[in-house]
Amino acid sequence: MSFRARRLTLPLLVLALASGSAKAEEGMWTFDNLPTKKIQAAYGWAPDQAWLDHVRLSALRFPGGSGSFVSADGLVLTNHHVGRGWIQRVSDKDHDYVKNGFAAQDRDHEIKVPGLELLTLMAMDNITDRLAKVVKPGASEAEAHKLREGEIERIKKEMQEKTGLTCEHVTLYQGGEHWIYSYKKHTDVRLVFAPEMQIAFFGGDYDNFTYPRHNLDFSIFRVYENGKPCHPKAFLHWTRTGLKAGDLTFVTGHPGRTSRQDTLAQMIYSRDVAIPMRLKAMERRKEALVEYGKSSPEAARQVNTQIFGVENGLKAVNGYWSGLKNPEAMARIAAAEKDLRAKVDADPKLSAEVGDAWARIEEALKVSGNLAKESQIVGTADSTLLGYALALVRITDEEHLPSDKRLPEYSDANLKAAKTRLSVHAPFYAEQEIFMFTQGLEHAAKELGGAHPYIQAMLDGKPAAEVARAAVSGSKLADPEFRKALLAGGKKAVAECQDPMILLAQKLDPLSREVRRKQVEQVQSVLTECGARIAKARFAAYGKETYPDATFTLRLTYGPVAEYPANGTLIQPFTTFGGLFDRYDGWGGNAAAAHGGAWTLPQRWIDKRGALDPAMPFNFVHKVDIIGGNSGSPVVDRKGELVGLIFDGDIDMLPGNYFYDDKANRGVSVDARGLLHALDKVYGASALVAELTGK
Amino acid sequence: MSFRARRLTLPLLVLALASGSAKAEEGMWTFDNLPTKKIQAAYGWAPDQAWLDHVRLSALRFPGGSGSFVSADGLVLTNHHVGRGWIQRVSDKDHDYVKNGFAAQDRDHEIKVPGLELLTLMAMDNITDRLAKVVKPGASEAEAHKLREGEIERIKKEMQEKTGLTCEHVTLYQGGEHWIYSYKKHTDVRLVFAPEMQIAFFGGDYDNFTYPRHNLDFSIFRVYENGKPCHPKAFLHWTRTGLKAGDLTFVTGHPGRTSRQDTLAQMIYSRDVAIPMRLKAMERRKEALVEYGKSSPEAARQVNTQIFGVENGLKAVNGYWSGLKNPEAMARIAAAEKDLRAKVDADPKLSAEVGDAWARIEEALKVSGNLAKESQIVGTADSTLLGYALALVRITDEEHLPSDKRLPEYSDANLKAAKTRLSVHAPFYAEQEIFMFTQGLEHAAKELGGAHPYIQAMLDGKPAAEVARAAVSGSKLADPEFRKALLAGGKKAVAECQDPMILLAQKLDPLSREVRRKQVEQVQSVLTECGARIAKARFAAYGKETYPDATFTLRLTYGPVAEYPANGTLIQPFTTFGGLFDRYDGWGGNAAAAHGGAWTLPQRWIDKRGALDPAMPFNFVHKVDIIGGNSGSPVVDRKGELVGLIFDGDIDMLPGNYFYDDKANRGVSVDARGLLHALDKVYGASALVAELTGK
Repeated sequence: MSFRARRLTLPLLVLALASGSAKAEEGMWTFDNLPTKKIQAAYGWAPDQAWLDHVRLSALRFPGGSGSFVSADGLVLTNHHVGRGWIQRVSDKDHDYVKNGFAAQDRDHEIKVPGLELLTLMAMDNITDRLAKVVKPGASEAEAHKLREGEIERIKKEMQEKTGLTCEHVTLYQGGEHWIYSYKKHTDVRLVFAPEMQIAFFGGDYDNFTYPRHNLDFSIFRVYENGKPCHPKAFLHWTRTGLKAGDLTFVTGHPGRTSRQDTLAQMIYSRDVAIPMRLKAMERRKEALVEYGKSSPEAARQVNTQIFGVENGLKAVNGYWSGLKNPEAMARIAAAEKDLRAKVDADPKLSAEVGDAWARIEEALKVSGNLAKESQIVGTADSTLLGYALALVRITDEEHLPSDKRLPEYSDANLKAAKTRLSVHAPFYAEQEIFMFTQGLEHAAKELGGAHPYIQAMLDGKPAAEVARAAVSGSKLADPEFRKALLAGGKKAVAECQDPMILLAQKLDPLSREVRRKQVEQVQSVLTECGARIAKARFAAYGKETYPDATFTLRLTYGPVAEYPANGTLIQPFTTFGGLFDRYDGWGGNAAAAHGGAWTLPQRWIDKRGALDPAMPFNFVHKVDIIGGNSGSPVVDRKGELVGLIFDGDIDMLPGNYFYDDKANRGVSVDARGLLHALDKVYGASALVAELTGK
Repeated sequence: MSFRARRLTLPLLVLALASGSAKAEEGMWTFDNLPTKKIQAAYGWAPDQAWLDHVRLSALRFPGGSGSFVSADGLVLTNHHVGRGWIQRVSDKDHDYVKNGFAAQDRDHEIKVPGLELLTLMAMDNITDRLAKVVKPGASEAEAHKLREGEIERIKKEMQEKTGLTCEHVTLYQGGEHWIYSYKKHTDVRLVFAPEMQIAFFGGDYDNFTYPRHNLDFSIFRVYENGKPCHPKAFLHWTRTGLKAGDLTFVTGHPGRTSRQDTLAQMIYSRDVAIPMRLKAMERRKEALVEYGKSSPEAARQVNTQIFGVENGLKAVNGYWSGLKNPEAMARIAAAEKDLRAKVDADPKLSAEVGDAWARIEEALKVSGNLAKESQIVGTADSTLLGYALALVRITDEEHLPSDKRLPEYSDANLKAAKTRLSVHAPFYAEQEIFMFTQGLEHAAKELGGAHPYIQAMLDGKPAAEVARAAVSGSKLADPEFRKALLAGGKKAVAECQDPMILLAQKLDPLSREVRRKQVEQVQSVLTECGARIAKARFAAYGKETYPDATFTLRLTYGPVAEYPANGTLIQPFTTFGGLFDRYDGWGGNAAAAHGGAWTLPQRWIDKRGALDPAMPFNFVHKVDIIGGNSGSPVVDRKGELVGLIFDGDIDMLPGNYFYDDKANRGVSVDARGLLHALDKVYGASALVAELTGK
């Protein structure tokens, strides 16, 4: 799985929880608001402040995922699939560390990963009251918005100057609370260890989002400071005892986004319009990649990771969809909305504040349905180079405007990252680019018709294949130095540039902005504003008894190791090394290499089989409330010791995007004992084992 | 699972196949009509007559299940769960061979199993033409029926006298063909080997009808003749090569009954009325058994097998139900019916024959719905003794009538078996009987109301508990000698008998007959007659291109070892001994004994773990078309060698009652190599291994 923070087509909106009475293990709790009494009541024990601080300071945010410090010398543990893109980045044609794995022979051979930055959450400050004070009664909504935005920027600047940390504004409970989260940023991160992808992702996309599972989905990095291994303020000690069924676990990580507070109408829209469209687009992209991959072994290698990414996305989105297609769940959601609306109706003040928010959301969704096709298609047509070009056109056009006048992706908060993306080297394959761009344009022409201004602008009456080949072949944008030069040259340099992709981007820019403008003005702004009104009402009605929707910020979730009902039986809480080989043998081993070799093993594992303990735990499932972005999160026990590494959820976790149901929703983790056993017995990584276990 | 021939409330009716184009591996083929060309085309090989004869003569019919000869000295292989009742019958309080297993130390210690009779199908004779000749044109339907029945009896008698075999009339294609199947009956059958139930039924009811699976579900008997081991005409040789994924397998056994030719209206009736009622009754019975089992460890022991039986039935019926609740499948069934009806409409002769059959079936089902509650409840109210009593009253009343004037269960074909059932010893527990009879009566009173004649007759105004205790305590019917004496004494002895159960049975008899009469006259006869008319039309339209519905007679099904999609992934074709221990360890082993110890292992298996090959195949799945009654069927390869022993289907096999869909419908078998490995390494049964492998 690629269990990262994800984006839906619809903007992140929405609201606090439907009801104050969250289910037993439900909740992605913020560190300031853990339901300590509830945990104490259920388990006879709850974390204290020291425990919480230790776990929080040990946690790390990866781009799109999570991780943790696991040694005094700055070793970092995350999933293989969170590290995979970075491992690939330091690979080349002669060193395929994704396929073959990597083990630094000593610290001098740890490989610096350009562009990889990790974050530790050092402080959280609630600025809700301070923000409230800047808005005078009677101010218009626009004025209020401007005042708040100004104040947020002031506070961030103040704090950043004072602490030297990286400060981010965090909106919780969809506006119920505002916080500044201050991060220590680690910019020198080096690759220490990665197993072969085949054991990290045993069972491949088939087993993704399923269980029983046998994935050694981990990779190890190290943070350096001033050229030396860093000594983090806190790190997680490796368990000496391990887990058993029923044991309480905690997961600390960065769930990316949930949509649990969408209105019923929004969920129905997602179910009937947005998700089906999205699935269709993903299927199309997958088919194109598969088709291209057939052209040569090198082509197959190129698209391998991308296909896995799309397949994973498909399974995930289908999983979310299954939640929305569950009539019982939809009935619960309808009942919760009814409850809230009754509370609103019964309170004149709340009623006045909410107004016709639900009805307006319904209207906006109708408009969204009409705009959906154009919104999806008018863009860069699967061309990476056109993506670069459009970013260059827009950044150089907007960078001198005030932050709030720019497109949101180029606001102060995002501009630097956007420029970095343009400046770093990324693998580029011209033939793949031509293939994907051609099919992207052909699809667009088929869907919108040749008379559409977008098609006119892109094709100008020529065949898609010709346009794509000419633009890709004639473009220098694959070269990061060329992009950097254009960035440095600014608006003038871009305006004068005759690169064919830049010329296409200049035609695309106004068309794309127009589609976006309609979407923002007629849909997004309504959903945001009305969503916020409903959110405020919900926060007024239910308060902080519950947790906010996920925001890719640090959360804590807890629950026991627990089996669940599936496939007509009960599913075992742990799998073992013996089970791994059962899957291997049951599929006929490396000799059969069934289904593209999904259940084959690296030769090293075959060779070392006799040295392994078949009863050693490999993966386990636990009742925790997680979502994409949680990948790489450490699993800790009451002692705060590392007992596992979460890397997936079962198929019943996916509807968790919209609601939590503890019947079968489970997190899937690598067992810390199994991880160490493999490092020791398969890889002979004795120095690493010694450092991890503090011996 | 208990994978036996089963009975639904509705009578066995119905019709040949909906369409001539059966799916790739679909079909429970009779031995005279194997689709040889199709097999040849698909697999480049097909059985010849010698192969077919050998496989047929090696096959055995068990009561409710299947088996096969597997040695020159008459060893018989079947499932543990087919043998279980018989193993229990030869157990006693000091020797629990079900729990602890049994291994005869030598032939002298093989235990004779009273009442167990096995059948070998020696000959099959098509009498369709001969039957057709006895009916003169213009004969009324009743006359025709009588003439045919008479002729069938004559043929059977003739053949029985000529061959000394046991002859059974078999109706195929719901009347399209009539056959006499002649069996050699083996009456001296002895128990040779049984593993512990815990490994035979590893995972218990949880894993029943599921896969991946790890059940050593076998038991071994031996047929004796004249006090010596018999030498069967044919037996299956044990495989030397074993199977791999994709290999073609054949299963020969006795599928009990399918309802694939029900009309759409009947399927809808089953879905909406019959099955929900049946599930409710089973749930009630299970709850009662569980409740009684709580009263003492001895009570728990008593009801153990019965509860497993009911749970298995529940999962099975829920599985059948799931097929009927599948809208796509129902659409296919509707389309097939439409196709047939169009063919009928286009053919005036067929039209005339079918008449308003579909409409009349629909009307009869409405009546059936009204009668359903009485039909289900007016009976023996979960009392075994009342069951004996009613049989005694009826048999002695009817035995001197001509066969066709009796209740069908006491016709010539069935009378001897019915008398035998009354004569053999069966375990009896008075307290359990009182408990079950009480709750049965209470339930009946609640459902029908105190004023109903049945309740009046049974309770006579007294509390159910009092009636049940008095009747059970005062009855001598638990004693087989007492029952035999009454049978021998005939109508007069029964009429004079003052046993309280006999007195109750005398009151029940007319009431029960009246309910049955209505059911037969208003429903069953219509379904049979109209079903037969549709069947004939179907046979005229599609003929023998396809196979008849299951009739608990010998069939052959074939297909490859094959994975299938389930649980969000693809499921491995084989499991291994390593996988068995993965389940064991993953649930925490014998120490945890999770969920009633469902995944615990006999101590012998723990002790011998080190001697076992973890990669040895244990169970496998294959694409074969099976149903209850196939349990214990041998799985053979092209060479006709024994490669496995079928014991279950996956959960997707269950809708196979109504239709076949090869996407995920799979048979689950014990691998012959694994069976031998266990006999050898765990049980040290060297003599048995030598006999099975012919060494």
